[in-house]
Amino acid sequence: MPTDTPLKNEPPQVDAFQPPDRLLMGAGPSPVHEDVLKAMGQTTIGHLDPTMVGMMDELKDMLRYVFQTQNAMTFPVSGPGSLGMEACVNNIIEPGDKVIVAINGVFGTRMAEVAQRAGADVIITEDEWGTAVDPGKVEAALKANPGVKAVGFVHAETSTGALSDATALCRLAKDHGALSIVDTVTSLGGVPVNIDVWGADAVYSGTQKCLSCPPGLSPVTFSDRAVQVTLDRETPVQSWLLDLSLVAIYWHGDEKTGARTYHHTAPVNALMGLHEALRRIVQEGLENVWARHRETSAIIVAGMEEMGFSMLVDADVRLPELLTIKLPDGIDDGAVRGKLINDYGIEISAGLGPFAGKLWRIGVMGEGARPENAERVLSAIKECIG
Amino acid sequence: MPTDTPLKNEPPQVDAFQPPDRLLMGAGPSPVHEDVLKAMGQTTIGHLDPTMVGMMDELKDMLRYVFQTQNAMTFPVSGPGSLGMEACVNNIIEPGDKVIVAINGVFGTRMAEVAQRAGADVIITEDEWGTAVDPGKVEAALKANPGVKAVGFVHAETSTGALSDATALCRLAKDHGALSIVDTVTSLGGVPVNIDVWGADAVYSGTQKCLSCPPGLSPVTFSDRAVQVTLDRETPVQSWLLDLSLVAIYWHGDEKTGARTYHHTAPVNALMGLHEALRRIVQEGLENVWARHRETSAIIVAGMEEMGFSMLVDADVRLPELLTIKLPDGIDDGAVRGKLINDYGIEISAGLGPFAGKLWRIGVMGEGARPENAERVLSAIKECIG
Repeated sequence: MPTDTPLKNEPPQVDAFQPPDRLLMGAGPSPVHEDVLKAMGQTTIGHLDPTMVGMMDELKDMLRYVFQTQNAMTFPVSGPGSLGMEACVNNIIEPGDKVIVAINGVFGTRMAEVAQRAGADVIITEDEWGTAVDPGKVEAALKANPGVKAVGFVHAETSTGALSDATALCRLAKDHGALSIVDTVTSLGGVPVNIDVWGADAVYSGTQKCLSCPPGLSPVTFSDRAVQVTLDRETPVQSWLLDLSLVAIYWHGDEKTGARTYHHTAPVNALMGLHEALRRIVQEGLENVWARHRETSAIIVAGMEEMGFSMLVDADVRLPELLTIKLPDGIDDGAVRGKLINDYGIEISAGLGPFAGKLWRIGVMGEGARPENAERVLSAIKECIG
Repeated sequence: MPTDTPLKNEPPQVDAFQPPDRLLMGAGPSPVHEDVLKAMGQTTIGHLDPTMVGMMDELKDMLRYVFQTQNAMTFPVSGPGSLGMEACVNNIIEPGDKVIVAINGVFGTRMAEVAQRAGADVIITEDEWGTAVDPGKVEAALKANPGVKAVGFVHAETSTGALSDATALCRLAKDHGALSIVDTVTSLGGVPVNIDVWGADAVYSGTQKCLSCPPGLSPVTFSDRAVQVTLDRETPVQSWLLDLSLVAIYWHGDEKTGARTYHHTAPVNALMGLHEALRRIVQEGLENVWARHRETSAIIVAGMEEMGFSMLVDADVRLPELLTIKLPDGIDDGAVRGKLINDYGIEISAGLGPFAGKLWRIGVMGEGARPENAERVLSAIKECIG
């Protein structure tokens, strides 16, 4: 032992992979700046290297800035946004807890399913896809269901492009003694996200949208109240990896000594990339970044309307970073998107769920949110449908 | 709405992070070849880009080669090895299922905890840390507990450096009508891993050990039997992200049309890195890679023994890629490891659990497994303790 069994599987012949040049103007990932790619491609170091621990502290500070929060428990979960969703839901919810989830698209639906898998008694409010969550329905659900532990909603629905009123929804939760669980995957860095002003409790995001970083990490932030709820649980968190009380020893250190010790092996290179992506936002300034998203988006909206397209979402709740654009009769969804990617190297996204084949999703995210990209998309679409 | 709340958090002043040069000879991450870093730092593309889908198919083929399996359900989970552990345990186990977990170190202990969190009735067998799992104890537990659904064990215990007999343990499970759940985090690419010869059912690994790739992905492979057990479940898998029946649509495609569609946004750049790391192993040939681990490890063992150190693990079950080296009296663990990293840029790892302060873990993994690295470690240790 080791057993010397001869190899049975032949080695496959595979060439090095070279990704094509793409302008990513879909629902994410968004374009990644060269400096972020370079940072991520630096030499790998240990997940407990003293320099790594210093880098992680800077990373947490920058996340607190983009989340606009003082929450101590702020760090990136070692997985995609959907894992961040599970981290928030599974730390807060115990089997049998009542949870309201407001659904107005794919990601609210997903949150309800994650809550069900966590054993929650899930109460759903529904709004038409393409509209914001109606706080009135959430309030009615809170009144009709005393003892609700948490209210979950999606701030920026990536499937529809609608923005919901996080201030109102978090306040409603708080007024009824419930915690709030907020999906900011597509809003963080694209539109104002003000965790402390909202009073939000458990919030997750993704790196591959308006932060303009490759996919694979999910920044989360938990209020002190949410952390306490997690510590006071009667049942263990379903996921060992996501259990806040365990992962804290790596990201925040031992409660007494502050020493940072091993929990899991964090994705060192991905974290170096996120560090640089956040640094770029810090240097530009959040308000300037938001303005750049707004202004670039306006160019695309005007150009698409000029070509005869119309927007799914009303202007007052329309996400600048994710435009859902209705397809007029006679436009072949797949053919045009195929032509855009194959002939122009431009990725835009298809509709999800009931919107499949009926609309396009054009992302105006992070590095994508620059006027020259808007012009490139518009002129390519014009040629494709002309 | 968007609310124009003024920013409350000041932007932190942060310099670009430049990792120091390190020779990673600890328990992982291992050194990453420049070509892998370059591959990972290539431009980000969409997770459903046609070229991405082709790259993913090659990646699955190469994983099948390193796992030595024909299993269709073979892909990298979008998270670290601990998430791969949860993927295997949580897909197989339903609440109330009886599971035997063989513990001979930290990672068997973790698997038992993950199984408990999945609601299993966990039956534990224990072996002294530093020894292999005793198949006799597992057999006795199987006989004493009819109806066990799965037997879980760690092939290569990263905390102790002991290799267990996967062939015997998987056969025992099968003979008693149970599935096997196998941790190959530290064995894959370092010593023979022969999934189909073993008849293993649910197997996970990590990228940051002998595959010499940055941390962040967990290759998994499931036998057809294990996939069927997952499809036949009466309760949903706890984790939405890890549910094989859902993630399959992204990694394997729709059952009827073969079309690959969105499940979650996979970590595109990390996957490009893994593609290149696997390509390097395929080109060198698995048997040559195993030999390189064995030969480099022998240099370190001989050198350390010459300096008066002794090995924790008996030679017949000693992992070449993870050496646990007992500290003689008079050696200051923390001081020497600190000097090694600060003055020599060499990372070795501390003991875990009961071995904290009592031994070192020297990793001989992937690109680390080269004679010149062995010589560098030996000469630095000699100077540090001299």
